[in-house]
Amino acid sequence: MHLGLIGYGSIAHSLIGMLPADRVPRVTVLVRPASLDKAKHDAPPTGSGPAVQVVSTLEGLLAARTGVVVECAGHAAVARFGADILRRGIPFIPASLGALADADLHENMLQAARTGGARLTIPAGAIGGLDLLQALALNGPPRVTYRGIKPPAAWKGSPADAIVDLDALATRTVFFSGTGREAASAYPKNANVVAAIALSGGGFDHMKVELVADPEARANSHSYEVISPICTYTIEIANSPNPANPRTSMTTVASLLLEILRHDPQEPL
Amino acid sequence: MHLGLIGYGSIAHSLIGMLPADRVPRVTVLVRPASLDKAKHDAPPTGSGPAVQVVSTLEGLLAARTGVVVECAGHAAVARFGADILRRGIPFIPASLGALADADLHENMLQAARTGGARLTIPAGAIGGLDLLQALALNGPPRVTYRGIKPPAAWKGSPADAIVDLDALATRTVFFSGTGREAASAYPKNANVVAAIALSGGGFDHMKVELVADPEARANSHSYEVISPICTYTIEIANSPNPANPRTSMTTVASLLLEILRHDPQEPL
Repeated sequence: MHLGLIGYGSIAHSLIGMLPADRVPRVTVLVRPASLDKAKHDAPPTGSGPAVQVVSTLEGLLAARTGVVVECAGHAAVARFGADILRRGIPFIPASLGALADADLHENMLQAARTGGARLTIPAGAIGGLDLLQALALNGPPRVTYRGIKPPAAWKGSPADAIVDLDALATRTVFFSGTGREAASAYPKNANVVAAIALSGGGFDHMKVELVADPEARANSHSYEVISPICTYTIEIANSPNPANPRTSMTTVASLLLEILRHDPQEPL
Repeated sequence: MHLGLIGYGSIAHSLIGMLPADRVPRVTVLVRPASLDKAKHDAPPTGSGPAVQVVSTLEGLLAARTGVVVECAGHAAVARFGADILRRGIPFIPASLGALADADLHENMLQAARTGGARLTIPAGAIGGLDLLQALALNGPPRVTYRGIKPPAAWKGSPADAIVDLDALATRTVFFSGTGREAASAYPKNANVVAAIALSGGGFDHMKVELVADPEARANSHSYEVISPICTYTIEIANSPNPANPRTSMTTVASLLLEILRHDPQEPL
């Protein structure tokens, strides 16, 4: 399988490092023109893992005739390239799912997927349990409440600064409660997880989000609760930081790898 | 899409009732020869939902040239038909996953899937979170502990009878603790859930199972805990009984439907 990647930051490097070269021998990476020289320099030497080719235009990526394309370059890259890729019939896996909180963009991408007959995959990312949520949603939108819990210091620089005194917080405090769409817009660092749950369930407007600063918390964690007529469940997840880049969750990388392997037509397992 | 089903009991009937006829207009059901007349009588009248055809031999099912085949007939049907279907290149979704606790049968089916180039899908069934578990397992087998929790009366007729006095139980009691393989063999009613987790993680022998009788429990519930170097999570699930048949979980039906729709090559969403 020939994999397409958009972006060549820490997620892309971690992902390439995990690719089984016998199943994904070739990768073509789309980077910004300004990053082309650096990216060529960063590409692993021939012989270690998959062969990596770097291009700087969408035309270059399309000309490489890759199978599935994975985006790991940020929300703007989903908006800029996603629909064109799907329209060409190429399956697309966006890591930056938060971009789909823009309802027009989401609709545009769904149309492109239909036109191209190509799948738009929602990877589990830093969260899980989307398998059950997607199954329950077939029966009507479930009631979902998501909680993002971080130590107070981790919320610095977000709108939380203006709502609570993060330095003085003594107890676990819910400082935001709103819809998924409101949360994805105001707290972009949580947007990808919120979007993964929203897109698997009843959408951004039918999902409640609570953001929590907890002085007892040692790491970031996610939890959500689902109530539907046929099942209720809760899931609580604590991700370990990626040693190479604490801002990148390794579960995000692992879930992208899983979805890539599931798209491999040669290896059905 | 033309769906193949093995078995025509309550799961099959619930599933057929949920199929969107515009996406799955045709179903061929394999039943035992002795059940053929009854099954023909049970088939819904033309015009309401998908058109249902009933056959009584594997040859009849194969001759119908269905897309994906879903098994909902019990463990014996997986053992009898699964490998043949996969070897013919037809994707196979077994609801009775517990059959794969038989290591020889499991290996045989994986070989058949490779030979046929057809996918063997593990549906989430009565459980969820397998998306994250499968992603984590790419990094090596996670540590998994599953707990099946039921009211004492629900364990009657199982080996638990000989271990604890179910009628007199006053507190929540773990009466079984062992590997996934031991649990699937001794407690067949939990085998499908145990197998779904085992097959998504590190296998039956690298999974701990605890079975619990809880006088406070009002319904059956499942929970499991996953510990891996990159993430830990817990999920707790309480399924509502299917009003048509309390022994069948509606989440099982919904997750089969989700996997069927995901196999539809005409509708990528």
